[in-house]
Amino acid sequence: MVRIIEVGPRDGLQNEAASIPTTSKLAFVRALLESGLREIEVTSFVSPKWVPQLGDAAELWPPLAELAREFGPRSVPVPPSDPAVKSWESEGGETPALADEPLFSALIPNAKGLERALEVGVRRIAVFTAASDSFTRKNINMTIDESLAVFQDVIAAFRSVEPNGWVRGYVSTAFECPLEGRVLPSETVRVASRLAALGCDEISIGDTLGVAAPTEVRALTRLLVSHIPKPQLAYHFHDTRGTAIANVAEALEQGIMAFDSSAGGLGGCPYAPGAGGNVATEDVVYFLERTGVPTGIDLRTLAQASLPILEQLGRPVSAKAQRAVLSA
Amino acid sequence: MVRIIEVGPRDGLQNEAASIPTTSKLAFVRALLESGLREIEVTSFVSPKWVPQLGDAAELWPPLAELAREFGPRSVPVPPSDPAVKSWESEGGETPALADEPLFSALIPNAKGLERALEVGVRRIAVFTAASDSFTRKNINMTIDESLAVFQDVIAAFRSVEPNGWVRGYVSTAFECPLEGRVLPSETVRVASRLAALGCDEISIGDTLGVAAPTEVRALTRLLVSHIPKPQLAYHFHDTRGTAIANVAEALEQGIMAFDSSAGGLGGCPYAPGAGGNVATEDVVYFLERTGVPTGIDLRTLAQASLPILEQLGRPVSAKAQRAVLSA
Repeated sequence: MVRIIEVGPRDGLQNEAASIPTTSKLAFVRALLESGLREIEVTSFVSPKWVPQLGDAAELWPPLAELAREFGPRSVPVPPSDPAVKSWESEGGETPALADEPLFSALIPNAKGLERALEVGVRRIAVFTAASDSFTRKNINMTIDESLAVFQDVIAAFRSVEPNGWVRGYVSTAFECPLEGRVLPSETVRVASRLAALGCDEISIGDTLGVAAPTEVRALTRLLVSHIPKPQLAYHFHDTRGTAIANVAEALEQGIMAFDSSAGGLGGCPYAPGAGGNVATEDVVYFLERTGVPTGIDLRTLAQASLPILEQLGRPVSAKAQRAVLSA
Repeated sequence: MVRIIEVGPRDGLQNEAASIPTTSKLAFVRALLESGLREIEVTSFVSPKWVPQLGDAAELWPPLAELAREFGPRSVPVPPSDPAVKSWESEGGETPALADEPLFSALIPNAKGLERALEVGVRRIAVFTAASDSFTRKNINMTIDESLAVFQDVIAAFRSVEPNGWVRGYVSTAFECPLEGRVLPSETVRVASRLAALGCDEISIGDTLGVAAPTEVRALTRLLVSHIPKPQLAYHFHDTRGTAIANVAEALEQGIMAFDSSAGGLGGCPYAPGAGGNVATEDVVYFLERTGVPTGIDLRTLAQASLPILEQLGRPVSAKAQRAVLSA
């Protein structure tokens, strides 16, 4: 079983000009849960001054706790394997347990954000840095090392309140930086290893620009897994140039078991300059299920989940497997 | 060097409700040539009664012959290899010669179509069958065997007039049929082998529904190449569910050197029921170049080529690498 970490509510909405009402966000999360998704990054405790679209982070939490109870533990039926498809698991894949109950996480940019998150009971947090100094300077106004120093304190403070909490570390621009160009795999591995050393339970490796080809994913993954255990790694691909599913396929081939994605391909703006959203959860689910890797997610239900949000954003349905399912 | 066979003018336009004027088609072909593409399937000599959109097949040919002279032999500069990407060729790929001058082909459904094509000097033809009997019955009103009998005569008649002509055979529904469901690899290989035995220079294996995952491509390719030499094989992927580039990557990994695609992802209707176009040439070129496989095609020029046609069809730009290039 491969884990899919849905990032649409956070990564998909943070760059939108339009603000989505809190009730719509909650309806979106409910629809995602109904499709079978269980790991969802729902928001960021970034200052509302900087990202007003996510300014309702604290308000979201109490109703999310209710949703978590409502959608509590489930049993995940593993579908009968399709004999026409060579099973991925028969090729030596491991099968970690899939989350049984909803797991909501939130991005934490700094100590102030952590404080706000802990007040409402957030138990799963994510911190965000990059493999390129120029990018972190521009994006979060710190060098990589400065950001890691901040996160060391954030993680320590979080653990002291939530000793059984969960921490994810993002390494963005893992393949290429808009300012520096190609990023060496060794640089990405260096930052990922530092995050692991800070106690991150999972490291998510991001192709922020959506430029990577599978050969690069292969090279980076082989180097990564020589430093960090495979079950601790996830990939976060953007599908800006059509290579995301090929990259998921290659990472899966290399034994990676967790992928970030966004329902409806939310994120970036498909019809505006600088286009490029997250890989669509629908495309990832279709690919995995067709490959014989069960996901526990119902593609038909999932394809409906992002429709109200797309409508509010004035976006057409553009995720391929979503469109195919909706028109079938 | 990998060959890209552009099928936009034929496969991309044949199902369109709108008819594109002949002059627009010629401008489209010119733009494709300017991008560096050299193998283009430009039309079908199907009865204008059935496909009025391609009713100008014969009219196209004389101006195409002029274009072929104008864009005559070229030298293909191989770009310096990118050290950040592991070269595909260093992994044992072969490098067949790339077409130096424009090569235009046309689909030939029957003896009558061949007659019309030979009258205007067509030297490269394609015939079209499928791996599923139900599909060929519905699509071309013949069983597979009946279609092969027709093609045997068509190919013989063609060779008698054009002994140095070139023949391509299509095997559609190679993975799945809309009527019969999954198609066994052995069935696809059987039909492909029959086409090879009829003297087809190239066999193009089509994922008509755009459903295949790379594991299936791997299994089918391994069986295919045990019957047909690799340089004689091409793949024709549709990107209906986001798996096309992953499938190209897997086929390339298995040593396949020729891929059909359509500029702007023309074909099918991205925003209508039954959606699903050809894989976009832009996405294939981006993937190959980023992988370190030279194509001789300029992505910026290519991204412009389909814009006038998309506008006439009232379609937004939806091919990912095209959008990324245009917004850069």
